Amino acid sequence: MTATRFFSDNAAAVHPAVMEALSAANHVDTAYDGDALSQSLDAAFSNLFETTCEVVWIPTGTAANSIILAHFVRPWQGILCYEEAHIEVDECGAPAFYSGGAKLMTLPGRGAKIDAEALKTRLSMVRKDVHQVQPAAISITNATEYGLAWRPSEVGAISEVARAEGLKLHMDGARFANAVAFTGCAPADVTWRAGVDALSFGFTKNGAMMAEAIVFFGGSGGAGVRELKKRGGHLLSKGRFVAAQIRAMLKDDLWLTNARAANAGAAALAAACGDRLMYPVEANELFVKLTADEAARLRKAGFDFYDWGTGAARLVTSWDQDSESVAPLAAAIAAL
Amino acid sequence: MTATRFFSDNAAAVHPAVMEALSAANHVDTAYDGDALSQSLDAAFSNLFETTCEVVWIPTGTAANSIILAHFVRPWQGILCYEEAHIEVDECGAPAFYSGGAKLMTLPGRGAKIDAEALKTRLSMVRKDVHQVQPAAISITNATEYGLAWRPSEVGAISEVARAEGLKLHMDGARFANAVAFTGCAPADVTWRAGVDALSFGFTKNGAMMAEAIVFFGGSGGAGVRELKKRGGHLLSKGRFVAAQIRAMLKDDLWLTNARAANAGAAALAAACGDRLMYPVEANELFVKLTADEAARLRKAGFDFYDWGTGAARLVTSWDQDSESVAPLAAAIAAL
Amino acid sequence: MTATRFFSDNAAAVHPAVMEALSAANHVDTAYDGDALSQSLDAAFSNLFETTCEVVWIPTGTAANSIILAHFVRPWQGILCYEEAHIEVDECGAPAFYSGGAKLMTLPGRGAKIDAEALKTRLSMVRKDVHQVQPAAISITNATEYGLAWRPSEVGAISEVARAEGLKLHMDGARFANAVAFTGCAPADVTWRAGVDALSFGFTKNGAMMAEAIVFFGGSGGAGVRELKKRGGHLLSKGRFVAAQIRAMLKDDLWLTNARAANAGAAALAAACGDRLMYPVEANELFVKLTADEAARLRKAGFDFYDWGTGAARLVTSWDQDSESVAPLAAAIAAL
Amino acid sequence: MTATRFFSDNAAAVHPAVMEALSAANHVDTAYDGDALSQSLDAAFSNLFETTCEVVWIPTGTAANSIILAHFVRPWQGILCYEEAHIEVDECGAPAFYSGGAKLMTLPGRGAKIDAEALKTRLSMVRKDVHQVQPAAISITNATEYGLAWRPSEVGAISEVARAEGLKLHMDGARFANAVAFTGCAPADVTWRAGVDALSFGFTKNGAMMAEAIVFFGGSGGAGVRELKKRGGHLLSKGRFVAAQIRAMLKDDLWLTNARAANAGAAALAAACGDRLMYPVEANELFVKLTADEAARLRKAGFDFYDWGTGAARLVTSWDQDSESVAPLAAAIAAL
Repeated sequence: MTATRFFSDNAAAVHPAVMEALSAANHVDTAYDGDALSQSLDAAFSNLFETTCEVVWIPTGTAANSIILAHFVRPWQGILCYEEAHIEVDECGAPAFYSGGAKLMTLPGRGAKIDAEALKTRLSMVRKDVHQVQPAAISITNATEYGLAWRPSEVGAISEVARAEGLKLHMDGARFANAVAFTGCAPADVTWRAGVDALSFGFTKNGAMMAEAIVFFGGSGGAGVRELKKRGGHLLSKGRFVAAQIRAMLKDDLWLTNARAANAGAAALAAACGDRLMYPVEANELFVKLTADEAARLRKAGFDFYDWGTGAARLVTSWDQDSESVAPLAAAIAAL
Repeated sequence: MTATRFFSDNAAAVHPAVMEALSAANHVDTAYDGDALSQSLDAAFSNLFETTCEVVWIPTGTAANSIILAHFVRPWQGILCYEEAHIEVDECGAPAFYSGGAKLMTLPGRGAKIDAEALKTRLSMVRKDVHQVQPAAISITNATEYGLAWRPSEVGAISEVARAEGLKLHMDGARFANAVAFTGCAPADVTWRAGVDALSFGFTKNGAMMAEAIVFFGGSGGAGVRELKKRGGHLLSKGRFVAAQIRAMLKDDLWLTNARAANAGAAALAAACGDRLMYPVEANELFVKLTADEAARLRKAGFDFYDWGTGAARLVTSWDQDSESVAPLAAAIAAL
Repeated sequence: MTATRFFSDNAAAVHPAVMEALSAANHVDTAYDGDALSQSLDAAFSNLFETTCEVVWIPTGTAANSIILAHFVRPWQGILCYEEAHIEVDECGAPAFYSGGAKLMTLPGRGAKIDAEALKTRLSMVRKDVHQVQPAAISITNATEYGLAWRPSEVGAISEVARAEGLKLHMDGARFANAVAFTGCAPADVTWRAGVDALSFGFTKNGAMMAEAIVFFGGSGGAGVRELKKRGGHLLSKGRFVAAQIRAMLKDDLWLTNARAANAGAAALAAACGDRLMYPVEANELFVKLTADEAARLRKAGFDFYDWGTGAARLVTSWDQDSESVAPLAAAIAAL
Repeated sequence: MTATRFFSDNAAAVHPAVMEALSAANHVDTAYDGDALSQSLDAAFSNLFETTCEVVWIPTGTAANSIILAHFVRPWQGILCYEEAHIEVDECGAPAFYSGGAKLMTLPGRGAKIDAEALKTRLSMVRKDVHQVQPAAISITNATEYGLAWRPSEVGAISEVARAEGLKLHMDGARFANAVAFTGCAPADVTWRAGVDALSFGFTKNGAMMAEAIVFFGGSGGAGVRELKKRGGHLLSKGRFVAAQIRAMLKDDLWLTNARAANAGAAALAAACGDRLMYPVEANELFVKLTADEAARLRKAGFDFYDWGTGAARLVTSWDQDSESVAPLAAAIAAL
């Protein structure tokens, strides 16, 4: 099925190394997050990011994003984000739920990237009084919802505005691995060195089963994060099995290896798509112009993918679909 | 370690059959809960409970309890429960979080069992006006927080009051398997036939990795449950791995086999504890009078358990600790 | 000051008849809303609107809007509204607070009027799944944020879409009196007969001190409204003083008389503004093109008003500013 | 009616000086709380309390209590209070609503006074982990729900525990005037000098129409209070009319004069009640043993009051009921 499935990296299998790590963790240990694996995460990520990190495992990206944002804003404040950001359109209002009603304040952007100038304009439109919701955080997604990777300098431009206005900067990294694999920059360069305060580091789409990391850079995220996790029902009693997945993904940079494979698959498809591409392909998602008839022909040939509005489709590659795996689809598209 | 670990069934290993089910599920399938395993749960539980059930998998018991209760009450209403109920003292306020601020209204009870008469008295104390929070649901725990199993007639007495007052009845079944294994009644008899509207059916403590089932009896739980699950961040993108655990636990009644083993271990310990027992031992938890000195001696001998206030301890057996496994601790207690 | 103050109808004085009503109500009566004045509101509004109404007094429009909307939607649902609606930009997130986090989903509109076609398009963009917030209510403002009055047929076009999609329709009537005074239609025609489910009927801007009415058409609004009012801290213990203001405003149609006076003042100004008008003037607000220099000259002459972005100003007339009162400002504008 | 009405000080009339202040304030001024009266409150209370105060007017005590408490605790934290505190049993869960779900953690107490020792015991029972809600504030009521006045030393004993545990101390002063009138202490002595961080200072029951003050001692209460007030719908657009009431109550110590009158009425009744009194009478509430037959006889004679459970009644005197006014009831009780 790796040759025909392009509808979601959420549908991909779990990497064998993660499965092995689950088996290896299957012995008695302390409950919740008191176990050795959970306790090892701070050090592991501090090493990866070259700075002191506080890390909290969490089973889903929705929970990761919401808990970080609820930590950064009070209920009467706002969160600036791209107008089609995952937190805005695909999480059933989770950030409002976790924060007690904070407002998402949306911005346009090319390829789902917020622009620093647009951000300044948006901020200048907020009257500084109690009648208007005052923003307290910015959230950006890397890779973006349209598959683009943020460059450190772009993040820096956003964080400069954030700092000037006293806003926290969150990065939704559901596909952080794919973005870093593309730019080749150090994880530190596109996060805390560029001004990011906290990262939702996703592993599930990239080969894990249900494992994401909330990463606070530069010491502790402060009081409340672990309470929100418990209160939200995310403190699994056998939490070591989530930590084990993360450790497996970090070992020997499996997270990068997997992301590179998915990116390679996407790049191979991109080459076949040519002018059909709506955005540059930098990670593992392609947005492709496709008539209804063309889409039907590809589906008839067995390929599975999402329509993206009218006249377009989204193709997603996964860690188990490298350039070789996608060759049949690439050929089929080229032959349309 | 099975011979020495008695501090929590959350610390136990995952049953091999569950591990195998995870491996078997490790192929591509639809994301979230659209997969065949997730879709099979309604039928599987409907069969087990001999009535139409709507079932929603969820990774934790805290989330299961909170989502059911948030579904049954509005933010300005209340939930009646035992004064040391798990939802009251061990979930960091999760039911208040999910419900938008509903109030837990506590009751005393022997062995953590609410009494129908006390319930009536408590209800009679609520003025029917907008100044006082009006209860809309009752939550009971089976097995209780002190290890007792509810009999169908006892549940029926509670539900009779609930029906008369228009309250929904929820059962927190984190250790439902142990309770049913003890009484030997049909699962239906102690739930919907006795008036229970929804059950949090726990599998994690009983051999799964992170898998609980929200069970609504008699058709659909209604709109909102799946939205709350998503909004709470519990709709895992690879949800089939939670459903797979549940199917493994149901297969050949593994849930009952595991619970019987844990109960047998607890019964063997109970026999050794004699007058030390604070409550009858009906499930897999023992509350035992133990001086600080005695506790120290047991710990020195390698046994691990929680103190329960002063002069007492809690011992918990797990699915991998049958009567044989617990023999060393039984002997050590008898020798005190 | 009536000749120089144009910055807000919130700054106007309280009408003498309302002051007299407060004095007349100053005797002992039952607390909260059990008094005769509070109890008389259902009948008074049922008479005015020619249908059975359930009416709840409330001190502010923000609370009126929020309580109605929180009554119509669940926390995981959405509220469609104009992108600069008062509930979206001027209430510090109150609708999200009262509803437990419901999402405002904004739409463009000319003169702050939502368009039925744009509404259908917006609705068609919402995927019917648990990942996206599903709208459950529409809120429109009459008179709009830019001073336009809704015609019954326009409201009907919106409500037709609402009915087809199962959405409730709310009208924010902070300046309902001004709108009705302009169109001359029966209050019923532009509300329930056109499909409105509930109205926030404002009196404070129109001569009261702190008095608004939540009006549910066609019987009861249902359970929860009074609980939300109490829980929000709006059930004044001497509530009769709010009800008294409303009764004074209804008596001899004072609400219409006052609105007509304010509208006449606005119309007189409009005539003087000519091409400077950004929108037709239908109620008591004018949005006027004005250079910084012109604004400065008017202010130097003693007139007080808000700038509206750059190169424009907002002028608001009140019940105590009829066409005669505004003559000096009209002359000053004409002379610019 | 002043001779027969004893069911609530909420039912009393508004003092003439307050009515005059409303009339005097009835001219144009800035909207919301930008007016001179609102702006004068910080200085007025700073003078009264002999320290820098930040003061926010608010129409109800429920809102005052909730906003202060929501300011002191985060949603996952708790508020310690007496088990029959007004915030626990009479506000429809408002503190949970405003705080986003914080938990009220109740304590017993004699005459509704929390005891420092019981407080320490309760605190010692909370495990310091994320599973249990951690208290962050204590709320006491002065005068208490059973009409007792806190002495500065008693408040100091509570605040000593609060300081040691890092908890904020709130005083619900719905009848603060009556308590201070009884003890004769300086307002400062029983509040900030005794360790109180914020006070809900009630005026409505004591002769105002709808006016309470949120008082933060020792400078600013910090960010968020005014946002919560707006978000809760309590920032009246003609707010000067609330501020005017408060200024009238402070002028020439009208608040004390009124409270002394009500207390005198209560004392006169207390003398007539003798052994019937369930608690010492220190403010304006009496809890009196009264058989159903006796209650019926008093009601037949025209007196109005609440039953208090079975075999008891609550009598409340107001600012317009001094010892002379209550003579008929005193005589009637003596004659029972």
